[in-house]
Amino acid sequence: MTTRIVELRRGILKKNDELAAELRAQFRAAGVMVLNLVSSPGTGKTALLERTLRELRARGARAGALVGDLETDNDARRLGATGVPVRQINTHGICHLDAEMIGKHLDGWAEVAGENGTELGGLDYLFIENVGNLVCPSSYDLGERIRVVLLCVTEGEDKPLKYPGLFNSADAAVITKTDLAAACEFDRELALRNIDEIRPGIRVFETSAKTGAGMEGWLGYLEQLRADS
Amino acid sequence: MTTRIVELRRGILKKNDELAAELRAQFRAAGVMVLNLVSSPGTGKTALLERTLRELRARGARAGALVGDLETDNDARRLGATGVPVRQINTHGICHLDAEMIGKHLDGWAEVAGENGTELGGLDYLFIENVGNLVCPSSYDLGERIRVVLLCVTEGEDKPLKYPGLFNSADAAVITKTDLAAACEFDRELALRNIDEIRPGIRVFETSAKTGAGMEGWLGYLEQLRADS
Repeated sequence: MTTRIVELRRGILKKNDELAAELRAQFRAAGVMVLNLVSSPGTGKTALLERTLRELRARGARAGALVGDLETDNDARRLGATGVPVRQINTHGICHLDAEMIGKHLDGWAEVAGENGTELGGLDYLFIENVGNLVCPSSYDLGERIRVVLLCVTEGEDKPLKYPGLFNSADAAVITKTDLAAACEFDRELALRNIDEIRPGIRVFETSAKTGAGMEGWLGYLEQLRADS
Repeated sequence: MTTRIVELRRGILKKNDELAAELRAQFRAAGVMVLNLVSSPGTGKTALLERTLRELRARGARAGALVGDLETDNDARRLGATGVPVRQINTHGICHLDAEMIGKHLDGWAEVAGENGTELGGLDYLFIENVGNLVCPSSYDLGERIRVVLLCVTEGEDKPLKYPGLFNSADAAVITKTDLAAACEFDRELALRNIDEIRPGIRVFETSAKTGAGMEGWLGYLEQLRADS
């Protein structure tokens, strides 16, 4: 039985990888920078995105978002209030997004963009907010250019060591809710050391979507990604 | 392909359910109350357990713990310092515990218990700390009597609505890190309403493992479970 499961799993991942490669080519052709945000539930992916989308828009950049959740469209409604095109993906029990879900939700994107006239080809950035899960999303390539892992100061400094798969597959890390760091006695040096142990040399940003601290560095990184692409 | 996957998944879950039923019978015969703690990473399962184990021990109850993580034995070392028998289960990439892992780690438990002479039959409580994941553990029965879902005040009040599967399969809920509630503007009424919407009538405890707030009610519940069993 185990052999059959492993083979099936490989088959699923192979199919996903093929679809992701197609998406990646499509994103490149459209000139859109795609980022996949992964973290535990409650780390503040939506809050970071909300502020990021507003600030990018204020700077004249065109951004959109796809947000994954098992249920509810709470996040799409929150993000939609920023005025950028947003689509909710409900996975109904599936613990991660996959490339097929992304592909399906790109169809008719222009329609969602509405009066802004934004369609995939008109976007500078597409942010994908994955389902809150620090394990399973690591295996599923979504065709993104950059995978960003979030670590919240309230979560504990040892998360990179306990969930190495996701940290190891990330291109950048964002430490979130730094405004709560003192209240939960967050050991910053230890967290940075643990991130670096799993993924040496990774870019790390320390942000508070509430106070805006650290947003400048994060936005600068996003602009640099566009400039280099 | 989809049909084969669904069949295999059913097969895996059926096998797990059978093993879990055997474990449940074994636990009942040994007179041990088994609780399975599930939540996101960083919700404070280990901190709650640490305080719970110390306080139960101080009251003369005999407790043990099995702790699941993808990697590291950090949690077993933390919990072992309370003086009770503890075993770490490393899942190496698997995002949840299953009944087979539990069964394997019960073998030779007496040996771990060491000089305390505690073996499974001598325990009043066995706590199982699941891998941090708010999705996948919901499908895997570990033979526990009580499933406890933890919700941290820093995570956001909407988690029950976004991850209904796990909340719906729980017998009790613990709101953790209440000492941080003010700092993160936790809306207590909304959280309680959301929990109750998904799992009407569920027992809810509000605790801070740091200050000890709410521990009395939680410990009283544990003692009542033993008394009623």
